[in-house]
Amino acid sequence: MQTDIKIVLVNTTHSGNIGGVARAMKNMGLSNLVLVAPKSFPSAEASARAAGADDVLTAAIVVESLQQAIADCQLVFATSARERHIPWPIMDPREMAAVICAADKATDGSKVAIVFGREDRGLTNEELHLCQHHVCIPSVASFSSLNIAAAVQVIAYEIRMASLLDVSAQAPQWGTPWDAPLAEQRELELMFDHFESTMVKTGFLDPNSPRQFMTRLRRLIMRALPDKIEVNILRGMLTSITKYIGSEKK
Amino acid sequence: MQTDIKIVLVNTTHSGNIGGVARAMKNMGLSNLVLVAPKSFPSAEASARAAGADDVLTAAIVVESLQQAIADCQLVFATSARERHIPWPIMDPREMAAVICAADKATDGSKVAIVFGREDRGLTNEELHLCQHHVCIPSVASFSSLNIAAAVQVIAYEIRMASLLDVSAQAPQWGTPWDAPLAEQRELELMFDHFESTMVKTGFLDPNSPRQFMTRLRRLIMRALPDKIEVNILRGMLTSITKYIGSEKK
Repeated sequence: MQTDIKIVLVNTTHSGNIGGVARAMKNMGLSNLVLVAPKSFPSAEASARAAGADDVLTAAIVVESLQQAIADCQLVFATSARERHIPWPIMDPREMAAVICAADKATDGSKVAIVFGREDRGLTNEELHLCQHHVCIPSVASFSSLNIAAAVQVIAYEIRMASLLDVSAQAPQWGTPWDAPLAEQRELELMFDHFESTMVKTGFLDPNSPRQFMTRLRRLIMRALPDKIEVNILRGMLTSITKYIGSEKK
Repeated sequence: MQTDIKIVLVNTTHSGNIGGVARAMKNMGLSNLVLVAPKSFPSAEASARAAGADDVLTAAIVVESLQQAIADCQLVFATSARERHIPWPIMDPREMAAVICAADKATDGSKVAIVFGREDRGLTNEELHLCQHHVCIPSVASFSSLNIAAAVQVIAYEIRMASLLDVSAQAPQWGTPWDAPLAEQRELELMFDHFESTMVKTGFLDPNSPRQFMTRLRRLIMRALPDKIEVNILRGMLTSITKYIGSEKK
């Protein structure tokens, strides 16, 4: 696989878990670990639990925000256990792996981030909305929260199985080589900002009472995994609307 | 699924891992934990790592030998990372789950054991040979050893995925309801003892230089997952040979 896969941990509290994650990653051939504002890192406890995956810890990148961690990624998956107010498309880890493999084949390799939340509270709604897909490990409802290293182990295992079995043919999303690279996450965010400001200008969106408009718009567009050309087309469309509004006001 | 699935841990050294295993099991809906001569149990560390799966720890059974743990099981899987001198059929966790589901459908539920070895050395060859199938999580060759709780998480996850997806149709082993219950592990052991003593009597097997005969015989018969009727037929055959030898010597 040419795809570059990052495991992103947000605000991890227990240092030992960071080591357990590094070990699980290395077992499955992953090496890019990004830590968003960890409570403590590096630490002796992380190294002990890594059990030989020190190279993953040494190469780990620490950043201040989730946005920084995922800005250059084309595919961003958030792991999530909870049901949300507005349902977001949810895939299981096997479907996630198939999508990653299919994208890898169709686009000559993309940057992928898989985001894991806090041990006790997972990811916030705002963080989840930065991600295109939500992945849920199908645990039992009455005891659903996996240890974070165990969750990374399952996710990384599915990616490895998919790369070994070449399941990309089973993923319907891209059955053919794609004609443009997928948009990066920061490009999507700029586009959403553009949407929001434009809809405020048109009067469609009341900034004092935005309701669920932006959330539902994100959900819609992210589900499609837009490519760079498509993002440019949408932004061109927004720009053209703004110009029209401007001229009408005169 | 009607099948009763035991997770069997052999000589676990780190108490915390027992707790991690209990949590991973409960996350995936498994509850039967059997500990073969653990270094320390119960322990505060196990309870801490169980993070709410105390009921699994409380119900855990401690036994002295692997043989005791698996005696009443019809399907026994050993997890293994190492290549062995005599290659044994190896399946990946997904194949294992498909076999369990297929057996569940074909036999109205069987008792299944999945055996995990020591943190540092896994299972001995003798222990592996008590098990019908070897399961290998496809980790990278240069860093192949998973944490035991992470390994249980992957195995339990595959069983849960298989039960949710109903993949039994993909398993070729039993495409039809079976006409007899599968043999229990202790019945198989008695049969192998019977084979061994009979082959010594016939002179085929030199007890001072047994070579690989019994290992290869086990591998052959276990691969087929014999049912109770088949075991009785084989033992009847052995008994008949012994009688013949007895009469010839006279």
